Amino acid sequence: MILDKLRKSMADNNIDFYIIPTNDPHGSEYLPDYFKEREFVTGFTGSQGIAVVTQDDAFLWADGRYYIQAENQIKSTGFKLKKQGLAGVLNYDEWIEENISDGNTIGLNAEYFSEDSYKNIYSKLKSKNINIVDIDLIKDIWNNRPLLPAKEAFILELKYSGKSRVDKVNEIRNSINKKGAEITVISSLVDICWTLNIRAEDIEDTPVLISFLIIEKNKIILFTDKNKVLLISDKLNDVQIEKYDDFYSYLEGYKDEKIYLDIKNINHRIYSILSKKNIIIEGNNISSNLKAIKNEIEIKNLEDTYIRDGASLFKYITWIKDKVKESPIGEYDAQLKLDAIRASDDLYISNSFGTISAYGPNAAMMHYSANENQQSMIKNKSFYLVDSGGQYYSGTTDITRTIAMGDLTEEEIHDYTLTLKCHLNLMDCVFLKDTYDVALDGIARYEMWQDRQDYKCGTGHGIGFVLSVHEGPQSITRAKEPTKMEIGMVVSNEPGVYKESKHGIRIENIMRVIEDSETVDSVFHKFKTISYCPFELDAIDINLLSDKQLEVLNEYHKEVFEKLSPLLHGKELEELKHATRKVVR
Amino acid sequence: MILDKLRKSMADNNIDFYIIPTNDPHGSEYLPDYFKEREFVTGFTGSQGIAVVTQDDAFLWADGRYYIQAENQIKSTGFKLKKQGLAGVLNYDEWIEENISDGNTIGLNAEYFSEDSYKNIYSKLKSKNINIVDIDLIKDIWNNRPLLPAKEAFILELKYSGKSRVDKVNEIRNSINKKGAEITVISSLVDICWTLNIRAEDIEDTPVLISFLIIEKNKIILFTDKNKVLLISDKLNDVQIEKYDDFYSYLEGYKDEKIYLDIKNINHRIYSILSKKNIIIEGNNISSNLKAIKNEIEIKNLEDTYIRDGASLFKYITWIKDKVKESPIGEYDAQLKLDAIRASDDLYISNSFGTISAYGPNAAMMHYSANENQQSMIKNKSFYLVDSGGQYYSGTTDITRTIAMGDLTEEEIHDYTLTLKCHLNLMDCVFLKDTYDVALDGIARYEMWQDRQDYKCGTGHGIGFVLSVHEGPQSITRAKEPTKMEIGMVVSNEPGVYKESKHGIRIENIMRVIEDSETVDSVFHKFKTISYCPFELDAIDINLLSDKQLEVLNEYHKEVFEKLSPLLHGKELEELKHATRKVVR
Repeated sequence: MILDKLRKSMADNNIDFYIIPTNDPHGSEYLPDYFKEREFVTGFTGSQGIAVVTQDDAFLWADGRYYIQAENQIKSTGFKLKKQGLAGVLNYDEWIEENISDGNTIGLNAEYFSEDSYKNIYSKLKSKNINIVDIDLIKDIWNNRPLLPAKEAFILELKYSGKSRVDKVNEIRNSINKKGAEITVISSLVDICWTLNIRAEDIEDTPVLISFLIIEKNKIILFTDKNKVLLISDKLNDVQIEKYDDFYSYLEGYKDEKIYLDIKNINHRIYSILSKKNIIIEGNNISSNLKAIKNEIEIKNLEDTYIRDGASLFKYITWIKDKVKESPIGEYDAQLKLDAIRASDDLYISNSFGTISAYGPNAAMMHYSANENQQSMIKNKSFYLVDSGGQYYSGTTDITRTIAMGDLTEEEIHDYTLTLKCHLNLMDCVFLKDTYDVALDGIARYEMWQDRQDYKCGTGHGIGFVLSVHEGPQSITRAKEPTKMEIGMVVSNEPGVYKESKHGIRIENIMRVIEDSETVDSVFHKFKTISYCPFELDAIDINLLSDKQLEVLNEYHKEVFEKLSPLLHGKELEELKHATRKVVR
Repeated sequence: MILDKLRKSMADNNIDFYIIPTNDPHGSEYLPDYFKEREFVTGFTGSQGIAVVTQDDAFLWADGRYYIQAENQIKSTGFKLKKQGLAGVLNYDEWIEENISDGNTIGLNAEYFSEDSYKNIYSKLKSKNINIVDIDLIKDIWNNRPLLPAKEAFILELKYSGKSRVDKVNEIRNSINKKGAEITVISSLVDICWTLNIRAEDIEDTPVLISFLIIEKNKIILFTDKNKVLLISDKLNDVQIEKYDDFYSYLEGYKDEKIYLDIKNINHRIYSILSKKNIIIEGNNISSNLKAIKNEIEIKNLEDTYIRDGASLFKYITWIKDKVKESPIGEYDAQLKLDAIRASDDLYISNSFGTISAYGPNAAMMHYSANENQQSMIKNKSFYLVDSGGQYYSGTTDITRTIAMGDLTEEEIHDYTLTLKCHLNLMDCVFLKDTYDVALDGIARYEMWQDRQDYKCGTGHGIGFVLSVHEGPQSITRAKEPTKMEIGMVVSNEPGVYKESKHGIRIENIMRVIEDSETVDSVFHKFKTISYCPFELDAIDINLLSDKQLEVLNEYHKEVFEKLSPLLHGKELEELKHATRKVVR
């Protein structure tokens, strides 16, 4: 058994506690199979979770989404489940703190811990006499380990990216210079790809290249699989390409340098090597903030992309409404149609995440995923939720519509209208320059809370440009570390109502921050929604809308018709006209 | 000239830059005269500002409130003004960073810098070769320095405080033990006074005792002027009293201890001494969070106090409205009447801050203060704003009303109604348990922003119990470090409209957080307003209110009448009845 091998290796190496998190050396949101160590050891396939092993115990921490699945999957691997989030259940670090003794040694692969999270563990154990050792106990026990992806990288052309690699690198150099540094090391894949205008297909639905990047005063060094960049090496002539595996030994060469590091986005091994002989200047990755603010060419591309993407979605909605009038269709079978329509776009690369196609009560599970073998039939009543998006050369999309498939109950109409009210309030919101994202979360939820309802997820997230569909630093949620909203930021607006075994409603558009007006003492910003697809007029009780909300609804539908109608014909155009008709009390 | 003496002393001590902030060793919001070093050196009397001196330059940084005043006051002291907040004006630390050279030495009195703020300065200069020296260059050049206050301290009885010193100290000991510490050092005066249930009159309108506190495993040590606690020493029998001046040398005695420190609330000298030979465990002052959540006896006391305080304010409003019908009266002369009414309460100690009595355009200055020699006449038209509060043995109050003295313009009515709408939205707000204060700030400002207006101050602050009228950690504002709202927290609700040379409107009540309801997956909280005084019905355009807002208004007025009517008689009672009448469209 894997657990036995691991325990043997722990004993050989004098490790009392071994921690296996869900991470890669780059802090990626989704992992290539190669890095799925926690899955390999515990058998649990969920997207989050952390395992801790001692000679006597082996626990997996997983959250509420995964209690049932995890319990099943770890049965045969010797692990026991800790239901994270349940009252009285300690977090993994608290559990270690409770159970560790003076003189014990913790082992972990420091590549899988950001310096920030490592510091947290360390500071909790600081008052005890504990060793923490950076050690990889998995590599020798993992036979038939999957390989790293091998697909070739490509350059994202200037007509899409809007800013050259040279300009981006100069901006980064200037910024770190101002902070007193001359070198920066970047390990977050989206930051590397954004900076170099390079993309690949190393992570499913996220077009990044597995690599490390160092920007020195006169050198740019990319550590990656050299084969993957062979074909574009002429376009990377100012970039020195080194082997991925040579990265850490290269770091060992720095001495007495002033190095800028983002401790939230750099792993502990990197920090540990560099901080021994150099001065570390801490701060957020320069590129994280730069890439959050889309440039004019990116925005122009996004506007065009969202129109095409909205037309695709509306074609699908027309199709599925028609389809179920004849006979029910499976959720997964249906989503293949959507994926196909989207993929027919000339600039399509891949989806931007796994499509959520969820009928009726299934939609109440926020991260529901149907598949060929397990899917419900979509019928001609109640709600069907579809949350989907694409990676195009011209931008990344994400949009959700909850579709009325036929008759609705009063409760369904009430909840749809409530969701829409919150959506419209945020969409129409005017806010002072430098307002924090978390303040906007309060505004979005206000009417939901008045109705004693709440959705257990954020209201909105940033979105990468041909990068991860979830991108910081902004995030309209109850974030502990708020971020100021800035002109050019792009963010989703996705309130919802989720009622177990009843229905799930989410209405998601994408908005960008634009200027509003200036008064004698204030500068105001507002949102411009850039995704286009009708809401469900049949699901709205317009008597619950304020005059202002009704006005915003009609204005949006007018614009949806203007934007999508040139791309639609015949029956689809007729349906669009009907779906975006002006409504009055 | 003082500046010459300082420069001589700097030269003698090899100091190139000397920083003089506005602070005391305890991080107090308001300072005893003894600690007003920045005022002594620069001549500027404002409540905030920071001075930096070199052999060639001497600058005072002051914010927008003080540009004119500061410019006048520093004319003769050799300082030049840096208008903090103006575009292109560097902050003092940025200015130092720009102007300092390798090998230079900065001098500062480390007692006046929290460890947190010191770290900020230090990290900015880390990449340069700079020395920072803890040195007091003021004490030897300040002749006739004011003495520290000498009034005796008193015990806040259990019937007011609701929790014994023993219980509070035990709670603190338990909390720091859980974090691995056995000793904590507290220097914030409100935290010390709360913990020991002790009060004094060392800071104007804030009943604290200047002191340091150490909680060890088996000892409580208070460093203060021994004379001030002579009379209550029998009630402090478990507290070891030491001289204020012996504090730092006592700290030198610790070695190999685990000491809990709040680096935001401990000065750099303390940290510097302790961190040399001990393990420091960092975290917020345990008492800061404990005291923010009022206990049941404190709440009962507050409810009673706010009723008496509201009746006092309403008596004053009735009086002043009558008064100006005969003839105008000066703002300062009028406020003496309010202070006198409030002081007639048996439990009154002092005001809780300097009363703001501001007529017409004066109210647009948020921190306006009239005095005997400089006051405007209150007339029988337009708005008069009065913001005031008291320190009572039974609690601390703070309330603002904007009073219609006669005819109002349409703009005044519009702005009053807008302010009220924001006030009512927050008052009526329901929010998920663990919601951050900053999300509530967005909710409060939503309608204000829709109208393209904003107030340049927070929406609400916490309030101490017979302590500072401003108390953290919660604060309904665009805080960078949000705090979760918890049951028992008390907070003000004070949106406003401030239009230069026109009018200033603020409506301020005090609310406490209470339970609302629980659903299958959510726990909701809401506010209960505990300050009582009518709004100005004559200043409201009820057509601008939503149905919900009108309902909340009428409900509040009904309660105001119920609470205040038993304390009022004759004409005042008649006026109350009229002022709280139900309004309908």
